[in-house]
Amino acid sequence: MERGLLLIVSGPAGSGKSTVDGLLCQNPEFERSVSYTTRAPRKGEENGREYNFISEEEFLRLKDENALFEANYFCGHYYGSPRRRAEEVLASGRNFIMEIDVNGAMNMKKIYPEAVLIMLLPPSYSAQEKRLRGRGTEPEEKILARLARTKEELEFLPQYDYIVYNRENGAAEAAEEIRAIVRAEKSSVRRNPAAKDDYLAN
Amino acid sequence: MERGLLLIVSGPAGSGKSTVDGLLCQNPEFERSVSYTTRAPRKGEENGREYNFISEEEFLRLKDENALFEANYFCGHYYGSPRRRAEEVLASGRNFIMEIDVNGAMNMKKIYPEAVLIMLLPPSYSAQEKRLRGRGTEPEEKILARLARTKEELEFLPQYDYIVYNRENGAAEAAEEIRAIVRAEKSSVRRNPAAKDDYLAN
Repeated sequence: MERGLLLIVSGPAGSGKSTVDGLLCQNPEFERSVSYTTRAPRKGEENGREYNFISEEEFLRLKDENALFEANYFCGHYYGSPRRRAEEVLASGRNFIMEIDVNGAMNMKKIYPEAVLIMLLPPSYSAQEKRLRGRGTEPEEKILARLARTKEELEFLPQYDYIVYNRENGAAEAAEEIRAIVRAEKSSVRRNPAAKDDYLAN
Repeated sequence: MERGLLLIVSGPAGSGKSTVDGLLCQNPEFERSVSYTTRAPRKGEENGREYNFISEEEFLRLKDENALFEANYFCGHYYGSPRRRAEEVLASGRNFIMEIDVNGAMNMKKIYPEAVLIMLLPPSYSAQEKRLRGRGTEPEEKILARLARTKEELEFLPQYDYIVYNRENGAAEAAEEIRAIVRAEKSSVRRNPAAKDDYLAN
């Protein structure tokens, strides 16, 4: 059984990560990571969708069992991403998607160097600005903070493997591009060190 | 205009290179390299298809003009691959395919380090053997020589970027895999060093 790939998808505000990853996960070849948290669900959040909502006792047990990639404590609550689930999915040959920010991605790259790091971007900075303002839901200072944050995030681009643009109405195309990346990575000589021996033995 | 990719496709006897490359070239996004030679066309060969058949005078002029990647002299005739045509195709954003053996591929990698090296393989060694014998046109010693040569060729696999298997009746699938590789390579951070600046400026 060929192992699946661990995909780390980052992207600034307005890049449409959830939409693109949601499209990928319509195919059972992909599964999206759902983090654990000890905080209570907010209105509209569903257990197993936004987060796996668990008790502090359960969280600490998972942490002790090494079932988490990392555990963070933030504003009185624990957060952690599911290592054990990732292992199960990858071993079954399916791909596991983690939607995380640039700092999380840099950590994951250390923990799991075979991960494929993808930066999802809006078509351009001005298009991103337009998207954020177009939502009409956020105060100006928050929009400016998000745009400033984008410039910081882009400093990490050289540590990523791929850039995928989520063009206007282009989420399906972005998802297709990620599928092409998965296919190419799986064909790479680097990921198939036993190819020669396997070929000759069969 | 985004530059095209130079694809080097190698593969042992029976890998079906010409079939797969032919399928790719049905799409104008791809063009296959046609080498120059000063030898006379053989029966069934067509100018511009198997080779560009030219005079020695013309060949030496092309060589002087640096219009060739390399020029070889073999059994009284010159052979050379078209650098100028490659440049034109790549500059127009289309991809240029060179079907060459492992030694040629190693040379091209030095001359043009941005090239993508793809090794096309039959499903397995035993399947390859079956294919070669199945042709029923070659003497046993030639088949054995081709199989022995395959083992030597596979020693170069670590210098390649990708392995693509041409499975039984799978030429279309292999062509599709090469298209996925092209798409992924074009999205790679490594091939897009100006992505951050372009993003912020637009």
